[in-house]
Amino acid sequence: MQGDVVRRGRLTGERAGDMMHFLSSMTADRCIADADILVDIAHVMMLNKQKILGDEHARGLLSALLEIYDEGVPEAAFDDRFEDIHAGIESTLIAVVGEEVGGRLHIGRSRNDEVVACMRLRLREDILKQLTALVRLREVLLTLAEEHHGTIMPGFTHLQHAQPTTLAHWMLAYEQAFSRDFDRLWEAYDRVNRSPLGAAAFASTTYPINRELTAGLLGFSGLVENTMDAVASRDFALEVLADLTMMMATASRLCEDLILWSSGFIGFVTLDDAFCSTSSIMPQKKNPDTAEIMRAKAASLLGSFTAACAATKGLPMSYNRDLQELTPSLWRGVWDAKHSSRLLVDMLATARFNPDRMEAEAGKGNSTATDLADMLVRDYDLPFRTAHTIVGRAVQKGNLDLPTIDDAAKEVTGSDLSSRGLTGEKIRDALDVRQSVALRKVRGGPSELSVKVACQERNVKLAQDQAALDERVCAISGAISRLIRDARGMVQ
Amino acid sequence: MQGDVVRRGRLTGERAGDMMHFLSSMTADRCIADADILVDIAHVMMLNKQKILGDEHARGLLSALLEIYDEGVPEAAFDDRFEDIHAGIESTLIAVVGEEVGGRLHIGRSRNDEVVACMRLRLREDILKQLTALVRLREVLLTLAEEHHGTIMPGFTHLQHAQPTTLAHWMLAYEQAFSRDFDRLWEAYDRVNRSPLGAAAFASTTYPINRELTAGLLGFSGLVENTMDAVASRDFALEVLADLTMMMATASRLCEDLILWSSGFIGFVTLDDAFCSTSSIMPQKKNPDTAEIMRAKAASLLGSFTAACAATKGLPMSYNRDLQELTPSLWRGVWDAKHSSRLLVDMLATARFNPDRMEAEAGKGNSTATDLADMLVRDYDLPFRTAHTIVGRAVQKGNLDLPTIDDAAKEVTGSDLSSRGLTGEKIRDALDVRQSVALRKVRGGPSELSVKVACQERNVKLAQDQAALDERVCAISGAISRLIRDARGMVQ
Amino acid sequence: MQGDVVRRGRLTGERAGDMMHFLSSMTADRCIADADILVDIAHVMMLNKQKILGDEHARGLLSALLEIYDEGVPEAAFDDRFEDIHAGIESTLIAVVGEEVGGRLHIGRSRNDEVVACMRLRLREDILKQLTALVRLREVLLTLAEEHHGTIMPGFTHLQHAQPTTLAHWMLAYEQAFSRDFDRLWEAYDRVNRSPLGAAAFASTTYPINRELTAGLLGFSGLVENTMDAVASRDFALEVLADLTMMMATASRLCEDLILWSSGFIGFVTLDDAFCSTSSIMPQKKNPDTAEIMRAKAASLLGSFTAACAATKGLPMSYNRDLQELTPSLWRGVWDAKHSSRLLVDMLATARFNPDRMEAEAGKGNSTATDLADMLVRDYDLPFRTAHTIVGRAVQKGNLDLPTIDDAAKEVTGSDLSSRGLTGEKIRDALDVRQSVALRKVRGGPSELSVKVACQERNVKLAQDQAALDERVCAISGAISRLIRDARGMVQ
Amino acid sequence: MQGDVVRRGRLTGERAGDMMHFLSSMTADRCIADADILVDIAHVMMLNKQKILGDEHARGLLSALLEIYDEGVPEAAFDDRFEDIHAGIESTLIAVVGEEVGGRLHIGRSRNDEVVACMRLRLREDILKQLTALVRLREVLLTLAEEHHGTIMPGFTHLQHAQPTTLAHWMLAYEQAFSRDFDRLWEAYDRVNRSPLGAAAFASTTYPINRELTAGLLGFSGLVENTMDAVASRDFALEVLADLTMMMATASRLCEDLILWSSGFIGFVTLDDAFCSTSSIMPQKKNPDTAEIMRAKAASLLGSFTAACAATKGLPMSYNRDLQELTPSLWRGVWDAKHSSRLLVDMLATARFNPDRMEAEAGKGNSTATDLADMLVRDYDLPFRTAHTIVGRAVQKGNLDLPTIDDAAKEVTGSDLSSRGLTGEKIRDALDVRQSVALRKVRGGPSELSVKVACQERNVKLAQDQAALDERVCAISGAISRLIRDARGMVQ
Repeated sequence: MQGDVVRRGRLTGERAGDMMHFLSSMTADRCIADADILVDIAHVMMLNKQKILGDEHARGLLSALLEIYDEGVPEAAFDDRFEDIHAGIESTLIAVVGEEVGGRLHIGRSRNDEVVACMRLRLREDILKQLTALVRLREVLLTLAEEHHGTIMPGFTHLQHAQPTTLAHWMLAYEQAFSRDFDRLWEAYDRVNRSPLGAAAFASTTYPINRELTAGLLGFSGLVENTMDAVASRDFALEVLADLTMMMATASRLCEDLILWSSGFIGFVTLDDAFCSTSSIMPQKKNPDTAEIMRAKAASLLGSFTAACAATKGLPMSYNRDLQELTPSLWRGVWDAKHSSRLLVDMLATARFNPDRMEAEAGKGNSTATDLADMLVRDYDLPFRTAHTIVGRAVQKGNLDLPTIDDAAKEVTGSDLSSRGLTGEKIRDALDVRQSVALRKVRGGPSELSVKVACQERNVKLAQDQAALDERVCAISGAISRLIRDARGMVQ
Repeated sequence: MQGDVVRRGRLTGERAGDMMHFLSSMTADRCIADADILVDIAHVMMLNKQKILGDEHARGLLSALLEIYDEGVPEAAFDDRFEDIHAGIESTLIAVVGEEVGGRLHIGRSRNDEVVACMRLRLREDILKQLTALVRLREVLLTLAEEHHGTIMPGFTHLQHAQPTTLAHWMLAYEQAFSRDFDRLWEAYDRVNRSPLGAAAFASTTYPINRELTAGLLGFSGLVENTMDAVASRDFALEVLADLTMMMATASRLCEDLILWSSGFIGFVTLDDAFCSTSSIMPQKKNPDTAEIMRAKAASLLGSFTAACAATKGLPMSYNRDLQELTPSLWRGVWDAKHSSRLLVDMLATARFNPDRMEAEAGKGNSTATDLADMLVRDYDLPFRTAHTIVGRAVQKGNLDLPTIDDAAKEVTGSDLSSRGLTGEKIRDALDVRQSVALRKVRGGPSELSVKVACQERNVKLAQDQAALDERVCAISGAISRLIRDARGMVQ
Repeated sequence: MQGDVVRRGRLTGERAGDMMHFLSSMTADRCIADADILVDIAHVMMLNKQKILGDEHARGLLSALLEIYDEGVPEAAFDDRFEDIHAGIESTLIAVVGEEVGGRLHIGRSRNDEVVACMRLRLREDILKQLTALVRLREVLLTLAEEHHGTIMPGFTHLQHAQPTTLAHWMLAYEQAFSRDFDRLWEAYDRVNRSPLGAAAFASTTYPINRELTAGLLGFSGLVENTMDAVASRDFALEVLADLTMMMATASRLCEDLILWSSGFIGFVTLDDAFCSTSSIMPQKKNPDTAEIMRAKAASLLGSFTAACAATKGLPMSYNRDLQELTPSLWRGVWDAKHSSRLLVDMLATARFNPDRMEAEAGKGNSTATDLADMLVRDYDLPFRTAHTIVGRAVQKGNLDLPTIDDAAKEVTGSDLSSRGLTGEKIRDALDVRQSVALRKVRGGPSELSVKVACQERNVKLAQDQAALDERVCAISGAISRLIRDARGMVQ
Repeated sequence: MQGDVVRRGRLTGERAGDMMHFLSSMTADRCIADADILVDIAHVMMLNKQKILGDEHARGLLSALLEIYDEGVPEAAFDDRFEDIHAGIESTLIAVVGEEVGGRLHIGRSRNDEVVACMRLRLREDILKQLTALVRLREVLLTLAEEHHGTIMPGFTHLQHAQPTTLAHWMLAYEQAFSRDFDRLWEAYDRVNRSPLGAAAFASTTYPINRELTAGLLGFSGLVENTMDAVASRDFALEVLADLTMMMATASRLCEDLILWSSGFIGFVTLDDAFCSTSSIMPQKKNPDTAEIMRAKAASLLGSFTAACAATKGLPMSYNRDLQELTPSLWRGVWDAKHSSRLLVDMLATARFNPDRMEAEAGKGNSTATDLADMLVRDYDLPFRTAHTIVGRAVQKGNLDLPTIDDAAKEVTGSDLSSRGLTGEKIRDALDVRQSVALRKVRGGPSELSVKVACQERNVKLAQDQAALDERVCAISGAISRLIRDARGMVQ
């Protein structure tokens, strides 16, 4: 069987079983095998263009690489005997086309720049998919907001009934938060989509390579210029993990709300059976498992970020093998985030919200007491803090009717309010739930008026984001198509 | 003594000692006390402009607030009896100007929007200071790079001598990495510098407030539009902590290099005594303590991010008191990062690098073996992998002289190379350290040529960043000056 | 002013402002200043006993140290000019008694063994206090369990009504969990309470010191034998932080339950006003803030552990200054945990549980459907999975009455159950909530019988733990009393 | 194809592709599939003994379960259609033996107690293997310590040459640290090896089951008594992860030392080729990759702990599906730790240490300056701090010869030392490296005498640990053998 062509010169000694598995990055390398072929093809094209590699050798390499591209990286290349997929592919290639040709692939580069180029290629794909999932998620939230612009529900602080609001207001809150997650990933993309190729081991190379050319062939938007930084840094990966961790922290809150809302106590939402499980013992149970797992995924992402970040802490320049151990955390985090956000879209889209239950709860817990205090301020020119104290004391006494308010007012200010014209009807009006919401016409507020304006504005922003995203996706797929077309052109 | 005006209405019961300290956010609130006064002033100005607050009341409030602004928040406002600084200031204000005036400050707002506005005001200041520190840090790295563009040193991978490089190349690697940290914080700033004011508890308010006006008065660049999101979200704080964590992870690597380089074995750098300690028992010791503490600060930042992120995970909408516990982690992280980067500037600026020691080590460990392999590829048309194997085997045999190379070549290819013209002199030429570096003229590479170009380009980027930063600083300080001037105008 | 006596020999250069504060461990050192005096006293006693220090010098040192012991470490010793409290105390001592005497304190030791001895002394105190808090916490849980052995409540899985249980069962679940936290800390104590003294910088000393003697004087239960390990390792601190993190994770769950239970939807508990806050805007609000902050403290502890652990990762032997940065995380974590558990005791003790509300909810959500399936298994010899499917389908159809059960049985098994004797009354009996609980007599289960047995057993375990803890506390305080008494004897 | 028997009653709706994979715990469940069969067998044996299950049904179930036991869990049971392996095995079983028999397996239990029983069974195996690996690791360290009791080497603090020590001293430091890791896991074992079975969903069951019987059959050393705690708590898993994280933090330090020592600068150790890699570009490279990956594994463990701990934070009672997401972190952490410690044994055993290089470095950096100060204290009755200052100043002046010492003494004390009899020879004697080590005869110190005593004592402790471990392993395997034997007896 073909050995590892990289190790055969300098090192002796056999590696066996567990040790090979421990050291090999193969499991994680499955994520970057396809990218590696693209990198190889672009590298050969550049070497040939720069006359470092003759036409014949270039054609030999390209035709073997295109075959792998068409048929997928062969399973043999993933064998644990190889330290990594790069050694696996090069060794496999040499076994097929011979060393005279295959041995020329690695001119002017190192696995150090190769592996990080592959990571960046794969990660940019993952970011684009994640951005797409975020667009879908915001879309479903906006659709539901439009549908529920008049659905009154209680708003909570500290999980206590606080003030009435609308379901649309809640939807828009999450849409806006996920929009920031979109923006962060969008900005991270530009730091990810840069080419480290040409850095070689870290000191670049003595061959007259053209770094910009390779970068362009692969659709990178620029270089990681300094070649030591190019192989040694992984902050681009940490940044994406951090962004995904924050996104999942927000998603975990949405899931918490859905879990609470689908509890027997609250009943604001019924999740589709597909997203629920039952119990193996309790036949009546319907549990919001998907939301619970997703809530826990926020913890998993935090763990992935922690693992990746702590691995880089205190490493000397430039490349150290510790960086290999960072990648499983990266791919795991990316997988968790992508699937969570996709499922969240479907879970929201299929959920049935219960406006009647929501409205029935909206006025509980004296949720409009603030409106009463506001009315006292407006109509009786009380300082807000005084009105707040009066109403607070009345709640403590157990009632928000005229006598109790009057008692409280006397305690606080020395005089009652009924003698100044306060009536039970005025109090009841002030406490009305629908009016409470309707009056909150402030920009970004919960009233029907405010959420309609917000929906319009957010839809515009979403459409812009979608368009910009489409453009990026096209730019990348276009570059790769041209690369493959030109490579095929070479070998025909 | 003045009690907490917020609690007096609804709640009974005394809080004592430890409990008050546990619940109070006062320690962390020292960071936002000054910001709170600005928020109060802007809020009063807006209320008056919107005719929610009459001129007289507005003047009464403003004149008390300006006095606090001029003389600092009084120590009494920080008493643990108050739940937080907002209750502390309002209670203090009422004690001074009476409830008839002071009790009107809190119209149309809540501590929920107030506290997060204060956090954002303070954090934007901190970001600007951190950006300034990063500009200084990059500046000193570029200055040192220019000074050392010809200083040959060994480059390392896996802490093994790898290939020769230049000290300038190393400096530029870190400058480029810190430049990305600058960019990330720069982008985060725009998500931080937005006004949540007007969100009140989360449902906005029934008063005809003007959110854009308050935002403008305080120099915010826009709103956090949705009012539920405005009080419930802390991803802006998590993002800054994540950015600082990544920056410190990079700084910890630079420190690791300095610690290694100042060890007796390596001796590439002598740190200034001011950044070192000695031992209480070993009189000869000079230890790189500052660099060690800074290396550990990367761990502290990771801990701060972990604490803050895990605190928000799974919280239901909207505000929960858990968010208070996030802030000490935020301010601690911000402090650690700022002081670390400032000290790093001085530590680098005062360090004496040792070019002789560096050059003496640059050729060790067969560090130019790659150049020898490259020469064999160029001059004898060997595939790179074949050349790599030959040289690797020669190293294993212990020597890179002609006979050993010939032996290795015979083993690997079946024929020697001396019969094809290889001589000892050609080998020695290929192994020459200075030439090895000089040949690495690739963009971003270590040669004198490459680093000079890089220095020029990076200096341009730095100047642009500095200019943009100055503009931001001016915009903020201008807004605050105008706010205070206009407030003073009101009360005169 | 007195300078730092440790630095004056080897190092030049002034340190100013921020740098001193950054490098100094003074803030955290306030936690160990008192311990340092004890260490100094024991060290001098040992030196004298071993004839390394003459009687006169020993008396001079002891009398100065006892004065500090009696009056507290003077504020001057905490000045930031000193690198740490050890340098601060030694410098202060020399300023008072002169170098001829004071300069002899540091014979045969280093700050490296001194600081970790102080940490261990302080940490053992903190552990004992934490163990005491855990005893109190378990006590209040057991008391409440006894009080509520017959209080029926709904049990939840996935936050859905699952099966009826008792409040006592819930109390006992937490008591048992906190008992494991007690056990873990109890075991950690023995690894903490060991003396590193005599390790000096790491290589011990050439003086004929007696490590066992010093250890015994300070009440340590043994040595950290290897002197390199003694100064370099901090796993004892990490272990305590890990144990406290796990304890707080459990506490955060109890708090989550209390927050849920005090929501308007559930109403199982009313927390005392002292543990709640109101809103600055919404006068009716009563929020469970203490429980929320405590929930967040679990995140803070995780952050403290992360910071401390990541700081030690990858450090070379032996002592590195990074270890200093670990200690603020340690003391912060210890403080958070101690105060959280103490407040939890009071919050539980003053909470009013609402048995009527609990019982009213206990049967909701078909919570006894399992009992119905069990009855079908027992009385009609159905396989459990078949019975489970029948009841599950009936729930899906919306009812657990005879016709629906019969329909479901026909669907699942092909035949009905009423023809085999099933009646509506049998179904209703099987679904009875009180009976459902009463039948769960399994060891550790929720029935009144089971929880009474459990209460008895747990009280026995608690009494044993309390007794063992008392013994440990006495052993420590006895040793310290003897140390001070003997030291006073020397100087009289 | 066989559907999921658990879902079929209550829930409708299809789950497809990604969703099934996201929700299914199957990947992690491969770790517990074998344990699940043991749990099933013991459960059936107990049900039969308690007359809950007749002999015929019991035999039918046991014979199917024993077949799976003998031939391994069939691949079909791992299909993603099943929510987890428990549903997979039960569904498979029913498909084979029919529901009339197979449908009786789940009487008196739930997946909630089943899954955590399986986790505990698997985890106790893993702990025993980890303890074995730690015994091996300590063994190799002790063997090397004995071999190198006289090997002088420089000791380091702050990575600076500090004082001479012995290689044995270094080996013993790590052995002692890993011994504490052994102790922690040893203690955790007792909290892991307890049976939750009988807890069912959390409220136990109405069947007259015998929890102690099942526990005994499976070799558990006791019960997790409270049934709510039994299904809801995962602190046993967190504790193991915390213990492994601390162990890996120590291992990462050992690896850091090996990486440093195998660098070209230091050369204290040559690692076996099997544990190293070369470079794909630099033919001369030999990199300590295994040690680097292992160093990074400390970060991975910290990430696993963080993920698992944050997942449990703030969960309400009792079981929530979030707990499922904890298990992949657990098994990953266990795998990483086990393989790391095993490889560390082999890496140390095959490493070649270089005593000559070590001794050559031992005296560098004025590493015996403390001995000189100690001599001045002893022979000239100087206070230690005075002697320390004199020697420190002499080092600063650049020399430790008589004239420089005299100069320094005059500066510090006003008088020289040569007039009091100090000679160059006395100074040189005091600075002798071998004598410096030989004099450090303190318990736990580096002298040959001290390390020999330590080796003896540590070997005794190791033998005790090995014996106790053997006993535990036997107890477990004995119980399982008896269980299978008795089950086979039933079906014959």
